[in-house]
Amino acid sequence: MKRTSIRLADGRELSYYDEADDHDRSAIDLRELPPPPPASEIRYDPVLDEWVAIAAHRQTRTFLPPADECPLCPSRPGHLTEIPSSEYDVVVFENRFPSFSDRFADSEPQGPGVVIGPGAGRCEVVCFTDEHSTSFGALPQRRVRTVMDAWADRTAALSELPGVEQVFVFENRGEEIGVTLHHPHGQIYAYPFVAPRVRQALESARRHRDRTGRNLFADLLAAERGHAARVVAGNEHWTGFVPAAARWPYEVHLYPHRQVPDVAALSEDERDAFGPVYLDLLRRLDGLYDLPMPYVAAWHQAPVRTDRDLAYLHLQLFSTRRAPGKLKHLAGSESGMGVFVNDIRPEDAAEQLRRSPAAAPDGADA
Amino acid sequence: MKRTSIRLADGRELSYYDEADDHDRSAIDLRELPPPPPASEIRYDPVLDEWVAIAAHRQTRTFLPPADECPLCPSRPGHLTEIPSSEYDVVVFENRFPSFSDRFADSEPQGPGVVIGPGAGRCEVVCFTDEHSTSFGALPQRRVRTVMDAWADRTAALSELPGVEQVFVFENRGEEIGVTLHHPHGQIYAYPFVAPRVRQALESARRHRDRTGRNLFADLLAAERGHAARVVAGNEHWTGFVPAAARWPYEVHLYPHRQVPDVAALSEDERDAFGPVYLDLLRRLDGLYDLPMPYVAAWHQAPVRTDRDLAYLHLQLFSTRRAPGKLKHLAGSESGMGVFVNDIRPEDAAEQLRRSPAAAPDGADA
Repeated sequence: MKRTSIRLADGRELSYYDEADDHDRSAIDLRELPPPPPASEIRYDPVLDEWVAIAAHRQTRTFLPPADECPLCPSRPGHLTEIPSSEYDVVVFENRFPSFSDRFADSEPQGPGVVIGPGAGRCEVVCFTDEHSTSFGALPQRRVRTVMDAWADRTAALSELPGVEQVFVFENRGEEIGVTLHHPHGQIYAYPFVAPRVRQALESARRHRDRTGRNLFADLLAAERGHAARVVAGNEHWTGFVPAAARWPYEVHLYPHRQVPDVAALSEDERDAFGPVYLDLLRRLDGLYDLPMPYVAAWHQAPVRTDRDLAYLHLQLFSTRRAPGKLKHLAGSESGMGVFVNDIRPEDAAEQLRRSPAAAPDGADA
Repeated sequence: MKRTSIRLADGRELSYYDEADDHDRSAIDLRELPPPPPASEIRYDPVLDEWVAIAAHRQTRTFLPPADECPLCPSRPGHLTEIPSSEYDVVVFENRFPSFSDRFADSEPQGPGVVIGPGAGRCEVVCFTDEHSTSFGALPQRRVRTVMDAWADRTAALSELPGVEQVFVFENRGEEIGVTLHHPHGQIYAYPFVAPRVRQALESARRHRDRTGRNLFADLLAAERGHAARVVAGNEHWTGFVPAAARWPYEVHLYPHRQVPDVAALSEDERDAFGPVYLDLLRRLDGLYDLPMPYVAAWHQAPVRTDRDLAYLHLQLFSTRRAPGKLKHLAGSESGMGVFVNDIRPEDAAEQLRRSPAAAPDGADA
């Protein structure tokens, strides 16, 4: 894998991750772009003890453009995009409408007791392919490996940035889940705080270690592999299972068999072994109803500076579709109270996914 | 207000809350109904230290029926509904497809370490009016008072049920938010545990009290009333403001000026004063884009048995619409990491709501 980094017309960084060494990456960004917007601010919610990002400039971001105006396609004569080159394998660049960046100014005070900080950090876009009309699940395995190497490279790089406490690698797929660009892409958020859900999980892991001396996530993985009823797919290095207390209609947690803090710490073999299992899972998901499933794929990584021994890298993959034409919404109980009601038994979801007609023929063995 | 309770054909309880004493509530449910489904089960998520409800039977619930098949309209010849009477003011009945109920059986074991309990509790539907094609915001003030009396009555009654730890009164409005029936209605969930978001807020309140000796919510309310920049509406007994760290594009927290644990503890005057402010808020919301806004209205009440002195009743009202045709989705950052990114500054949201053309002419004074 060869990385080439350039600057876009407004100063944002872009990196090509190439599978061959002979690509010409000398194309320059010929657009006239305004300066990128300032960073958002983060505000402390004293009731829930969490930070919230306020990013007013994002209201004007690009929203579902027609395919011939896609900003994630390669540039061509008459249509200059975010990617100057005329083709690419994998590209990562700073989001033009970021929730977090290094361009923060002092915040204005907003009244007594309101704690405000800079939205320091970074938001990046990861383009998985230069083909507009495909999806992650249709990528060849070699490409998945390139994407994983890009994730690892970016996780390591963003972890070095001042003020960054957590690097979150994810993909939102489907308009139903709020995607504003259809071109296959993921995102990376480098947060200036430990994410609330990570902090919460690590508190549980700490209690478990204090009580048992063992790692909570490793114990969970071992129990699921032993019980097998909720295991969907896996191989020598990875196992994907539906958690016993799944919140979403179709939810799979994919763990490496070795405890590592983040994707950058995965071995060559683990990286190679990820693609077959993950592609199999994505195809099973789409095969469930023979419909592209809206999903979120969220890498749970260790915080940058703390609790790296307690954390255990895993991918949370879930769909909000509970049936054809029916989505799981986060309404009153989920959003107001934090109480999730899941309409599908986790054991049934696992069974449906195991039987999905789209399982890879040479697929991973569970 | 006069309450009359009956049983539906399958044994579920229904109560009429009437504004006049002379309604005939002797109509009986003539439908042949199967027995209601068993209760869901709750499963403990050891990673996030939260309970999740698994309610497989809810997959078959009624989904967006045509208006002439609405199960929440009054019964008429040839169309028997959940409400036997031919008209009503406010009606509360047990949900036919409940997430929680008293019909639980022993759960099957689901593997080592999986902690499962009964989905004990109750789910009720609150019909605000017998008019199918209206909305809460269009109710007369007298009706709002009747609804509030019903909420208070049900909160008190459900708090007495064995195993119930938290009573959650809420309304989901709009298909965009997952509503499956259009008839104006809300819901009440009686949970067998303290809801995660309530527990989290009360932990903050406990720390605040330990540190300052004061109530966290009372301090917040006093600060917002003093600062005024985020206050949207209010009167002698209630103030509605956009929280400084709002998570949603349009979010208002409506507090009574007196600290009470739940709606049942509100005085006559406070109940009377609620309608004018709340109706004003709902109309301002709908007036923002001259479009019915999808919203969640969530009453944060004290747990039934614990921390009733720490809690402070308030209504969280939020919309997921961030612009006409654009919704705020809970995608990767919110769902995976718990990090909310709000595209609208809370002070701007408050200003837009204050200027909304639909503000009540005789409205509440902020």
